[in-house]
Amino acid sequence: MKITIKDVARMANVSISTVSRVINNSQTVNSEIRKRVLDVLEATQFRPNAIARTLVKNNTSLIGVLLPEIKNNVLDDMVEGINQVAHLYGFDVMIALSGGNPDSEMHYYNLFREMQASGIIISASGIRDSLFELIEAAGIPCILVGRDSREQSIPSVHVDNTSAAFEAVTYLIQQGHRDIAMLRGAAGDISAGNQRFLGYEQALKAAQLPLRPELVLESGLSVEDGTTSMRKLYLSGPLPSAVFCATDRMAIGAMNFLTENGVKVPEQVSFFGFDDIDMAAIIRPKLSTVRYSASELGMVAARNLIKLIKGEELAAVHWSISHQLEIRDSIARLVKR
Amino acid sequence: MKITIKDVARMANVSISTVSRVINNSQTVNSEIRKRVLDVLEATQFRPNAIARTLVKNNTSLIGVLLPEIKNNVLDDMVEGINQVAHLYGFDVMIALSGGNPDSEMHYYNLFREMQASGIIISASGIRDSLFELIEAAGIPCILVGRDSREQSIPSVHVDNTSAAFEAVTYLIQQGHRDIAMLRGAAGDISAGNQRFLGYEQALKAAQLPLRPELVLESGLSVEDGTTSMRKLYLSGPLPSAVFCATDRMAIGAMNFLTENGVKVPEQVSFFGFDDIDMAAIIRPKLSTVRYSASELGMVAARNLIKLIKGEELAAVHWSISHQLEIRDSIARLVKR
Repeated sequence: MKITIKDVARMANVSISTVSRVINNSQTVNSEIRKRVLDVLEATQFRPNAIARTLVKNNTSLIGVLLPEIKNNVLDDMVEGINQVAHLYGFDVMIALSGGNPDSEMHYYNLFREMQASGIIISASGIRDSLFELIEAAGIPCILVGRDSREQSIPSVHVDNTSAAFEAVTYLIQQGHRDIAMLRGAAGDISAGNQRFLGYEQALKAAQLPLRPELVLESGLSVEDGTTSMRKLYLSGPLPSAVFCATDRMAIGAMNFLTENGVKVPEQVSFFGFDDIDMAAIIRPKLSTVRYSASELGMVAARNLIKLIKGEELAAVHWSISHQLEIRDSIARLVKR
Repeated sequence: MKITIKDVARMANVSISTVSRVINNSQTVNSEIRKRVLDVLEATQFRPNAIARTLVKNNTSLIGVLLPEIKNNVLDDMVEGINQVAHLYGFDVMIALSGGNPDSEMHYYNLFREMQASGIIISASGIRDSLFELIEAAGIPCILVGRDSREQSIPSVHVDNTSAAFEAVTYLIQQGHRDIAMLRGAAGDISAGNQRFLGYEQALKAAQLPLRPELVLESGLSVEDGTTSMRKLYLSGPLPSAVFCATDRMAIGAMNFLTENGVKVPEQVSFFGFDDIDMAAIIRPKLSTVRYSASELGMVAARNLIKLIKGEELAAVHWSISHQLEIRDSIARLVKR
């Protein structure tokens, strides 16, 4: 158990500020009280600057977490999972945000190393090859989350996005849908967005349905992006009977657009999202989506990072987190045509 | 400008891993390349362990941010504001999460101090007196956000919750509402929840309306808490014509409960929320709420913390962030009775 200044204050029966004054050698503490505090400090071995000194001894127990942002339910839950496991094993966790900026990613990666973090968990959708290279060269335990790094030797934890998207679109097909649009991320997005599009492609192919390019819209992954893409689709021709969206946020933006333009969801257009964010079950109609446990992503990453830190052998290098289809009210079953 | 290993690699025209190998004295680098890298290292004064050493020299430029959690739009935006300003002034930002646990708050507070952070921004709704005491004793620049610390000498940035709540409830009264319920936070909540209840009380009093205890429900601040409280209100007697909620999340949970039980919003019951989270404009009917800029909270905190760090004089010790009523579709105007 870590002794805090509070414990010292309680044991010496003085206030925290008195302990602080004694530590800082302030002259305003009377000698009897000073002696009492010093005795407790000695007995408890309390060291206010323990970290600064262990840094020098290269012996911290800090896990660094490098994220693009935190305005994102998935990353929030993931961090919760990391924290939970790290604290069980006595590790502290510090989070840095890169804003998705590769230079900033590199900077914070270096900062964590320089702080002598025991290991680093990186969630970087746009992670560059140079950072991969640095991670491999650095020799500090690292785990990637949210991006499949199978092409690299760096351990990673991720959702099997392609299979999950395949299953979601196949479900729509089984409900009788044939004209299924996809609102996807930008084609250059090397992470989840692309893999989810792959699953869409595969499901159409497996059902021998044509991929109709006019039904595939590229955009960002936000609510507003969903609205914008849906407007384009709405203006460009007859509506599809179903829309698969790369994120719940896009689906929510798209559904709201249609509802406001008098199109009935799911009677006229069905929707399938991805991520199962809080909002998915709160909006009406409730959104059908792909659910996975983001906190499990974090927990698996933290557990295996700690094994790496301790020099234990890993059971695998790449882990997939399980997912499931969460069917709610946004999908209509079509009668056979 | 901070030199990174990447800059060194580029200048020496080698890969990052080669630079790393030279730094780590690996024998696998040929002597000509080694010399080239060493020359660049010397010229750029690049120090891979700069932080560990500046820690000893007490000269980092790190701002620590201590939050209860990040599953919260307001805190996410606030962190964005902090990051934006900190980076402009050349500070790094590290975030630690306490999970709202006071021991963990204390632990990370100490960790930041021990890492020789230049200053700390603390958002701790449940922040305890012992931590206040520690902050005052520590002599390290600190700013509180989201909690009014006027009773303390610790600088703080916050929303004027009481005035904002007063204005929201007064607006409902002006729309003809007389029976206005409040779904509030727990009475023990010393932060925003309590202050918002104060504003509700004051608005009723100013309009000479009685405060009816059976219309005030205490709970947590989540969507589920809103649903639970609304169910109690629904089962306990005639519905009020309007409900003021301490958070948008509670309002959303309460509105969904009524809608699912056949009560029309806003025709039968009007709603006013607080915080203007993303969801407020996404759900239907769109929720009327109190809007303020959480990123401004963060920016003001960071700017003034940096002034404190630099030893500059502050224009004030406590700052209020401006707010405004965002009137949307969740409020009905009652005809005069």
